[in-house]
Amino acid sequence: MRIGRTGRQFCVVFIVGQCLLSWTAVAQPPSEDQKGTIRQLLATQVDAWNRGDLEGFMAGYWKSPELSFISGATETRGWQPTLDRYRKKYQGEGKETTPAGAKSAPSGGPGDMGKLDFFDLRVEMLAADAAFVRGHWHLKMKNGDEPGGLFTLILRKFPDGWKIIHDHTS
Amino acid sequence: MRIGRTGRQFCVVFIVGQCLLSWTAVAQPPSEDQKGTIRQLLATQVDAWNRGDLEGFMAGYWKSPELSFISGATETRGWQPTLDRYRKKYQGEGKETTPAGAKSAPSGGPGDMGKLDFFDLRVEMLAADAAFVRGHWHLKMKNGDEPGGLFTLILRKFPDGWKIIHDHTS
Repeated sequence: MRIGRTGRQFCVVFIVGQCLLSWTAVAQPPSEDQKGTIRQLLATQVDAWNRGDLEGFMAGYWKSPELSFISGATETRGWQPTLDRYRKKYQGEGKETTPAGAKSAPSGGPGDMGKLDFFDLRVEMLAADAAFVRGHWHLKMKNGDEPGGLFTLILRKFPDGWKIIHDHTS
Repeated sequence: MRIGRTGRQFCVVFIVGQCLLSWTAVAQPPSEDQKGTIRQLLATQVDAWNRGDLEGFMAGYWKSPELSFISGATETRGWQPTLDRYRKKYQGEGKETTPAGAKSAPSGGPGDMGKLDFFDLRVEMLAADAAFVRGHWHLKMKNGDEPGGLFTLILRKFPDGWKIIHDHTS
């Protein structure tokens, strides 16, 4: 049996194609890079919070009606309702509360969102485009209150980067 | 240019191999089947709980020191410490509390774990071997108390099946 020129060309193109696919897979940034990108996303959120930029903070979340945000015994669904909830809780007249919104608002004066800190972050990859983060949050309010707690975030990688698709805070 | 018999054989084996790999991917159970399996895991946990079988309930969790269980403001790490925590909270003398353990124990008598129910479950696949679940839990205690709340579970598929690797309950 002999295969013709077309057959040989097919073989070569097929094998080169498969090699390129393998190379592409290898050339993906390793998971440590992805974890670094996710940590950077959270650091950017903290910076935005600490300059009172709630929309900047919300840029880390998936801008979708499917975003979900569980705080204590309450779930908020959708990016816009989540932003509205933050606005009401943190930027309402005389309001100052926690990122979780789980506690009653300590009074730090209008628009005082406190100084936010995330720590003990553990970022775990679940797939090339999925990850979750466990961590602590802490707020230092002007009135001396220091609320804090734990959170679980689930993130997906979209064409425009990693976004939090689900947040469970307590 | 002519390729020899060995070359032809290599081409054939390579292409057949690639086809088999593609077929294997296609032959994976669809995500709806995986979701059904995960729902079954949770139903099995509820059944175990309701017959007072805490180890049966814990069989749904990853038996690893890396399991994490966040309840309110507390994190427990590891399968054994999580079981110990449940035992202390639910099966200790005069103890009866919630699966979350987040609330103080309503007194339902020794060993009364209450009747557990999970509802409004939303199972989402993150990869072929990773998923997360959002849902409500509810307990009906003998003394009439009915604590409840929300949970987020992260699951991975292991050789022995799907297991919860992280639980955040509030």
